[in-house]
Amino acid sequence: MYCVDLNSDLGESFGRYTIGNDDKIIPLITSANVACGYHASDPVVMNETLAQAKAAGIRVGAHPGYPDLMGFGRRNMSVSPAEAKAYTLYQLGALDAFCRAHKMKMQHVKPHGALYNMAAKDYELSQAICEAVKEFDDGLIILALSGGELARAAKDMGLRTALEVFADRAYEEDGSLMNRRKEGAMITDEEEAIARVIRMIKEKKVTAVTGKDIPIQADSVCVHGDGAKALAFVERIRGALAREGVEIRPLDEIV
Amino acid sequence: MYCVDLNSDLGESFGRYTIGNDDKIIPLITSANVACGYHASDPVVMNETLAQAKAAGIRVGAHPGYPDLMGFGRRNMSVSPAEAKAYTLYQLGALDAFCRAHKMKMQHVKPHGALYNMAAKDYELSQAICEAVKEFDDGLIILALSGGELARAAKDMGLRTALEVFADRAYEEDGSLMNRRKEGAMITDEEEAIARVIRMIKEKKVTAVTGKDIPIQADSVCVHGDGAKALAFVERIRGALAREGVEIRPLDEIV
Amino acid sequence: MYCVDLNSDLGESFGRYTIGNDDKIIPLITSANVACGYHASDPVVMNETLAQAKAAGIRVGAHPGYPDLMGFGRRNMSVSPAEAKAYTLYQLGALDAFCRAHKMKMQHVKPHGALYNMAAKDYELSQAICEAVKEFDDGLIILALSGGELARAAKDMGLRTALEVFADRAYEEDGSLMNRRKEGAMITDEEEAIARVIRMIKEKKVTAVTGKDIPIQADSVCVHGDGAKALAFVERIRGALAREGVEIRPLDEIV
Amino acid sequence: MYCVDLNSDLGESFGRYTIGNDDKIIPLITSANVACGYHASDPVVMNETLAQAKAAGIRVGAHPGYPDLMGFGRRNMSVSPAEAKAYTLYQLGALDAFCRAHKMKMQHVKPHGALYNMAAKDYELSQAICEAVKEFDDGLIILALSGGELARAAKDMGLRTALEVFADRAYEEDGSLMNRRKEGAMITDEEEAIARVIRMIKEKKVTAVTGKDIPIQADSVCVHGDGAKALAFVERIRGALAREGVEIRPLDEIV
Repeated sequence: MYCVDLNSDLGESFGRYTIGNDDKIIPLITSANVACGYHASDPVVMNETLAQAKAAGIRVGAHPGYPDLMGFGRRNMSVSPAEAKAYTLYQLGALDAFCRAHKMKMQHVKPHGALYNMAAKDYELSQAICEAVKEFDDGLIILALSGGELARAAKDMGLRTALEVFADRAYEEDGSLMNRRKEGAMITDEEEAIARVIRMIKEKKVTAVTGKDIPIQADSVCVHGDGAKALAFVERIRGALAREGVEIRPLDEIV
Repeated sequence: MYCVDLNSDLGESFGRYTIGNDDKIIPLITSANVACGYHASDPVVMNETLAQAKAAGIRVGAHPGYPDLMGFGRRNMSVSPAEAKAYTLYQLGALDAFCRAHKMKMQHVKPHGALYNMAAKDYELSQAICEAVKEFDDGLIILALSGGELARAAKDMGLRTALEVFADRAYEEDGSLMNRRKEGAMITDEEEAIARVIRMIKEKKVTAVTGKDIPIQADSVCVHGDGAKALAFVERIRGALAREGVEIRPLDEIV
Repeated sequence: MYCVDLNSDLGESFGRYTIGNDDKIIPLITSANVACGYHASDPVVMNETLAQAKAAGIRVGAHPGYPDLMGFGRRNMSVSPAEAKAYTLYQLGALDAFCRAHKMKMQHVKPHGALYNMAAKDYELSQAICEAVKEFDDGLIILALSGGELARAAKDMGLRTALEVFADRAYEEDGSLMNRRKEGAMITDEEEAIARVIRMIKEKKVTAVTGKDIPIQADSVCVHGDGAKALAFVERIRGALAREGVEIRPLDEIV
Repeated sequence: MYCVDLNSDLGESFGRYTIGNDDKIIPLITSANVACGYHASDPVVMNETLAQAKAAGIRVGAHPGYPDLMGFGRRNMSVSPAEAKAYTLYQLGALDAFCRAHKMKMQHVKPHGALYNMAAKDYELSQAICEAVKEFDDGLIILALSGGELARAAKDMGLRTALEVFADRAYEEDGSLMNRRKEGAMITDEEEAIARVIRMIKEKKVTAVTGKDIPIQADSVCVHGDGAKALAFVERIRGALAREGVEIRPLDEIV
């Protein structure tokens, strides 16, 4: 039997600023990546986000990012491994305090934005993140790009590792995501995107941009809640998964 | 037999900015109040501070403050109780991550600066802080001004409470600290300051600015490491305590 | 002939966070209070806001606030007069850079949120703000609460001063705004609110919450663009002003 | 006759954090690069720094940096040209407010840290910075690395450009600074460093790390005030310049 987790970024509001549709995406996912106050969120938002997640019965994970609220953590920053490790520890702990207050258990860690992208290509940075996770709680799952350096570092360090795929992104032949700025980087045909997801789960394969089939592991699919179209697409994925007999389950029941 | 804890604020550096004499004050104290990244410190500094504290065998506590790095957390801010609770949780968790990484146990919580001063006079704010502590770890000790509202809220909530006194500050007849801006607020004569501390510990009394003796509880004395004079004064207090047969012990061996 | 300015807060988005309906409120006002990066906004937003204001032909002013992005500058902070002066200078200069880049002239200064409210009751704080304005550009108009301390300090210092009234707020007999938390603080009947505005402009009077008529000066009415209802209300005010023969003009054509 | 400017970074303290020896380096330099609140400094510090600079009669320039206080602006950040332009405008304006308050005129602009280093190698980023300067005040001098992209962009845009050299750094054959992490990147022999400076000024040449002489333009020498050794070295440079008949003059008397 096949199963997969659906994960989404949550709790990215800040102060008086509201962003996303947390209440609408929560019923559609099994794992939430919760912002920890560096690239987005603040303690009041984190508290409310965990309350919502708990009420819905979904799992939560930390979504640590660069200290760049102005850039939403999406800009590459040349932080040292020691800094990356300390920033990760800080954010893991901060989120964990709200898990404790809500009597929840943190399930996973998924770096955000530029930290995610840089880690996927940088083994040393990935090691720093994994060391933080291991020292904080060695039972946590690292949610990483299938085929990337973070996944490799996590496995090398003996951490539980879940691999993530993207429905709407093209893959290079080496398994990396095609650069968004390149033509053809986004899969815009929803039918095709869904068919690819199903194949990634069932056949563990995806067709790279070169036309060649490459191996891929889909423990979780990253979905988005920003906008009516994105939400409708998640509904369609859920429908397709149901028809194909793929169960939607949280990460810690999968890896 | 008498015993008392000596506590000091630690780990207040930030990025390239260094402040305090952590290496010099650490050998003189039993409990360190470690800044958590809001009014001071950053994750790299927190990591280093815990490494130093562990090497020296002293206990550590969280020193949460207002989100006001520019004002070093010393400016009153009208945050709501819900905000104060969330800010405290966030900072407790952040510090705890470094405790975990260094295999240390957090001993206590002492609010910083304006948060400390406002809490001492505001029961509702104090309750918010205590709720955060209780939900995070109900075994933590609240380190609070003797006679203040935070101490009252902590006791009402069933939390372990340690009471703090100041060697160099004058007290009002109601047990509150005299406003620093008023004449006579600071005890500048070191002999007198030390004699007052000894009496607070042994007789549980101090002479208020009105001349009247008032009851006071001295579980811990707050000392400072900023400057050669401050450090020399701590040495003198330690000498006087030794001569008077007062043992210096960490908070969790006292309360 | 009567005339009045309509002012509104603008450019309060930050990074990826969008707030307000700047494009919808701009055509309805004559003066925009532009956030300067402390309580809200960032340089990219400031640049876009000035471009929009210029295209619409409305005047712009600085809207300096406390350095409290997390609280949107709405929380009282005990900053010193020297700090308030320096923060005001900083924000005036920052906004002025974008005025220069867009070849616009800054018209006025209106403190934001808690800084506005505290200044209205604190002459010393108001003086600090006015000193900053005077040293920066003594031709700038201070937009201040009618009857408040900022208006008094600005006049004492010889600055051009425009007085602001609120359509939806009840006034105390001393001319101050009734505390929002008190019952009856908000004028919820739109007809009544509009009638009050017209009377403030034409008769220079408003009925205080006590029932007594008090003198008031209405150089500008503060309006809001957050939400369809707020926008519709501004349309209604504009309609009423037109019917009553009150011209809507920018501040610098009024004071 | 030969002349050269001596420039140094100033006003990098923040809140309660003090850094540098501004009072000691000020008498030794002709141009100060003043931090503008992004990578370092705050409005109170900026105000004090300009007061000091004015009292000493030295010129001031803006020292804009990345919004990364935690990293002191020394970490590369992938900001877009539009962001870099807006950040530069913001910081230029902020500093200019204090120039106005102290009745001083801003002389130059020198990007800080990672922004300086990235601009030196990135023409598009340099253009963005130069556009900000040009739109703000086209009479300002850009102080840029001799041989770098910022200097090229500034000249292409018709801005006044001053070229800066470093006494203690080795140069590659293409005129760029040798990477600090490479062996031999720092000139540690003070005699040699001084001799190189004199030659750069008089012969407009320096020996690259390859042994080949390359052309270089030395309008200004960057010096540092952090530490007794650095200050003594500046004194030695000044002595050597005097002996060699090189006058020390501010940038705007040179370019």
